[in-house]
Amino acid sequence: MIMEVGHREASQAIEDGQLHLEHVQMRDKHVSSLQRGNEEKEKDRNTESLMTNFSNIYALDLLPARNGEEFTEQFLLEVVEILLNYIKKSFDDKSKVLDFHHPHQLLEGLEGLNLELSDYPEPLEQILVDCRDTLKYGVKTGHPRYFNQLSSGLDIIGLAGEWLTATANTNMFTYEIAPVFTVMEEILLKKMHEMIGWGETEADGIFSPGGTISNLYSILVARYKYFPEVKTKGMAALPQIVLFASEHSHYSIKKAAATLGIGTNNVIAVKCDGRGKMIPSDLEAEILKAKRQGRTPLYVTATAGTTVYGAFDPLVNIADICEKYKLWMHVDAAWGGGLLMSRKHSWKLHGIERANSVTWNPHKLMGVPLQCSAFLVCEKGLLQACNQMCAGYLFQPDKQYDVTYDTGDKTIQCGRHVDIFKLWLMWKAKGNQGFDILISKFLELADYLYKELKARENFELVFDAEPEFTNVCFWYIPPSLRRMPNGPERERVLHQVAPKIKAWMIEKGTMMVSYQPHGDKVNFFRMVFSNPATRKSDVDFLLEEIERLGKDI
Amino acid sequence: MIMEVGHREASQAIEDGQLHLEHVQMRDKHVSSLQRGNEEKEKDRNTESLMTNFSNIYALDLLPARNGEEFTEQFLLEVVEILLNYIKKSFDDKSKVLDFHHPHQLLEGLEGLNLELSDYPEPLEQILVDCRDTLKYGVKTGHPRYFNQLSSGLDIIGLAGEWLTATANTNMFTYEIAPVFTVMEEILLKKMHEMIGWGETEADGIFSPGGTISNLYSILVARYKYFPEVKTKGMAALPQIVLFASEHSHYSIKKAAATLGIGTNNVIAVKCDGRGKMIPSDLEAEILKAKRQGRTPLYVTATAGTTVYGAFDPLVNIADICEKYKLWMHVDAAWGGGLLMSRKHSWKLHGIERANSVTWNPHKLMGVPLQCSAFLVCEKGLLQACNQMCAGYLFQPDKQYDVTYDTGDKTIQCGRHVDIFKLWLMWKAKGNQGFDILISKFLELADYLYKELKARENFELVFDAEPEFTNVCFWYIPPSLRRMPNGPERERVLHQVAPKIKAWMIEKGTMMVSYQPHGDKVNFFRMVFSNPATRKSDVDFLLEEIERLGKDI
Repeated sequence: MIMEVGHREASQAIEDGQLHLEHVQMRDKHVSSLQRGNEEKEKDRNTESLMTNFSNIYALDLLPARNGEEFTEQFLLEVVEILLNYIKKSFDDKSKVLDFHHPHQLLEGLEGLNLELSDYPEPLEQILVDCRDTLKYGVKTGHPRYFNQLSSGLDIIGLAGEWLTATANTNMFTYEIAPVFTVMEEILLKKMHEMIGWGETEADGIFSPGGTISNLYSILVARYKYFPEVKTKGMAALPQIVLFASEHSHYSIKKAAATLGIGTNNVIAVKCDGRGKMIPSDLEAEILKAKRQGRTPLYVTATAGTTVYGAFDPLVNIADICEKYKLWMHVDAAWGGGLLMSRKHSWKLHGIERANSVTWNPHKLMGVPLQCSAFLVCEKGLLQACNQMCAGYLFQPDKQYDVTYDTGDKTIQCGRHVDIFKLWLMWKAKGNQGFDILISKFLELADYLYKELKARENFELVFDAEPEFTNVCFWYIPPSLRRMPNGPERERVLHQVAPKIKAWMIEKGTMMVSYQPHGDKVNFFRMVFSNPATRKSDVDFLLEEIERLGKDI
Repeated sequence: MIMEVGHREASQAIEDGQLHLEHVQMRDKHVSSLQRGNEEKEKDRNTESLMTNFSNIYALDLLPARNGEEFTEQFLLEVVEILLNYIKKSFDDKSKVLDFHHPHQLLEGLEGLNLELSDYPEPLEQILVDCRDTLKYGVKTGHPRYFNQLSSGLDIIGLAGEWLTATANTNMFTYEIAPVFTVMEEILLKKMHEMIGWGETEADGIFSPGGTISNLYSILVARYKYFPEVKTKGMAALPQIVLFASEHSHYSIKKAAATLGIGTNNVIAVKCDGRGKMIPSDLEAEILKAKRQGRTPLYVTATAGTTVYGAFDPLVNIADICEKYKLWMHVDAAWGGGLLMSRKHSWKLHGIERANSVTWNPHKLMGVPLQCSAFLVCEKGLLQACNQMCAGYLFQPDKQYDVTYDTGDKTIQCGRHVDIFKLWLMWKAKGNQGFDILISKFLELADYLYKELKARENFELVFDAEPEFTNVCFWYIPPSLRRMPNGPERERVLHQVAPKIKAWMIEKGTMMVSYQPHGDKVNFFRMVFSNPATRKSDVDFLLEEIERLGKDI
């Protein structure tokens, strides 16, 4: 027996050795240095345990290689040092947000940065250089002056959660291989249902790869609820269903309609008021019109926090209409859902408890690292019924545990990334209270910006009303434009102001803020607060920098 | 001016102070310890810089808090230490693969593990405990005896890539905020096209959240190619389209057909031979039958590496049929695509270069951490045309750089996780060669297992043929069953053997291997090699452990 084990260890050593040998032989340029290399590695191991020279160490020397433990630890600690330096720089408002280069420059290579891939392995020294360069030429989304998207900031607890998630490297499809994460997902879904006001018992949901997919789920489930035969027979078995969303709603509704075989023509745009809120009477008029045309109204999405204006649709009125016409009510709270964590501001989502389904992205207002999006549905079992295919190789009914925890058949995916641990860990570390404080701060900053804009003569608000959310939309009016009369020529010039300033701001790397046209409005800046690192002084900087960049236009 | 700056700094300090004060006031149980706490923190900072006591430090003390740098660094290093210990344990075959508990046990709480979330923040000490416990009660998917899924193992370079990706925390939708990653995606797509044999110029693609979504893309794009009006008008404007996939194909094809509004009845299952390969003559017969029924054949998926048997469909014959009937040919190489990296084995995918689209998951055979799935399409521009909605707030045409690098409108998502950096980094660190070596090793292990199974009398192969891939399917026949005659009773008992052994193996935590019924075959084990840590001795262990667990059934 002992001999057998001994023999096995010996043959393993041969197996490992052969593998390594083959690797080295194929790496022809390194063949002659093999012996010397091994000696050097041995020396490294003995004399320089804290400062490994990685120029002669390769991926194949790391675990699971025999004696790979030490190199693995040292290599990962080197990587972590690079990351820690990056994190410190990200939070330093004296560092640049980005070091801009054009696509062709990155493709051609920059100062030793070479993105091309080769047939042969690079030493770990080069891998560390590549890590540094990837960060150097990227965008610091955690920088206090990065305001470019609804998702910004770098939450340290969330980051730790992501590092752990990556290390656990598992898949959400079954309890079998993701027991803790599966249970955490259930706990988070329950918590979010409570905050929506649905109560614990009946609600259901799933974390999906982003708000657009969550919105797609809402239409998919609504369609199945009213017409379950769609699963087997397809859209051919259905009448001409139509969906309603406001003209300010996110483009994901149209995208999902195209994907699901409903067609974008069957998404009806409901008019909004000047602040971007859906007009309920127009919704009702559109429903009646569709019925007169012989089409079948099915679903309404109301938005809680529109992408550009940050508007909240009147949920109670929309719920009344959905009830009256027996339509599925979805609330796209991808952006605004976080306000449910705020004692002071959650009233803005009043009526959400009457929705059939909700999209809520913790990766936006709540600052969870990308990505983390929840699709929540009020009726238990619908998701499973709609999507399940009962694959025998994953969802064996004869497992020893309660297989209702194998949630993978609820999804339109098979494998599913673990997106929930970082949220769970942040919730533990902050409590509802911590999110509440953070979100209140964002709204205070929006209010501060609004007041500053009103007080400064070179800026113009897109709509003049105190912000309900953290979006603040405005034009910068350069001196040359202030003398121009209103009219098409002024509009034409004004349309070019934001893109020019944005381009210069990116070249300088001092900050990043988004702009866009919207409806009949020419390009304007959309400022948004979701970055915990941002302070009032950064808001002042924003306005001053826009003036510096734009004054000579 | 100086005064103004001074004033601003002072008001920031007040702002930060207020934030922290509010946090502490709300955390009522901690109010009285505030002063003491701050003193202790100060002491910690001075005297115990390497061994911080986190029992009185909270998330709000980390960056972006003022003076948060040191706590941030120390906290993240503590987390990394936990992760490094876990990694070492993962690769140690003397450690358990898992410490099994039932869902209700995790929900009720175990030895201080409490998954419930609270209104109040927990100190970072508790957060570190939670990290340790999450790993303790999870499954070590990198363990040499974890064989449970097609994705297994823990690649250290890939892991480093994920840690960096999490730290960069950005979104693939625009070049603007993900310049390096966007260019890397292009480089990887080109590389993969080359390996498929399409050449560089025309091909296109996207990394998606998993193989099932990649397969969905293939149907979506095929449908759009033949019937572009589907985007606006929906399925109502189309004839009854039908899709073809073998009876051994992945369930994602049916799932996608349900999602896309095509209906599962319109997915026709083509028969397979005893080894699980699609029978081309049956495909042709089914196409002709569908035509006779007035249905419109549109699309065929061929599988390169089926989930259970690891079979390769005859791609050349299928390509001929697709050409003859002008059908879209998709190859689902989610599992088998990695073989294209192998000089010895890539011939098994001969004919893939004639496909219109391919799914290839580097997170399977190539060992990239979850998740990393590529959808590749031969015709450039089709993905963009099919999915674009031109959202003004993201895809501004008046940016200063080449906006063709804003690839976000190609997808059915909006935000998209960065799944490519880990693959890019692994490719740099290994070269094609490194993947080649790894994959050859997996096939050698499969061959070794096959020979062992043939040599041992207590095992029976599901089909007796040398493995083409790394899947090996077999029954364990306990002594009590060896005496039973073939027939329904033996089948009934045999069906229960694998689940029983699997349950005991999970309770013991010694290894994990999958089982399932398939077609008319009762439950059998599906062994699969994709874990770089697995050695021949682990294969021996697998067989011996199954015998130990199952001998008294």
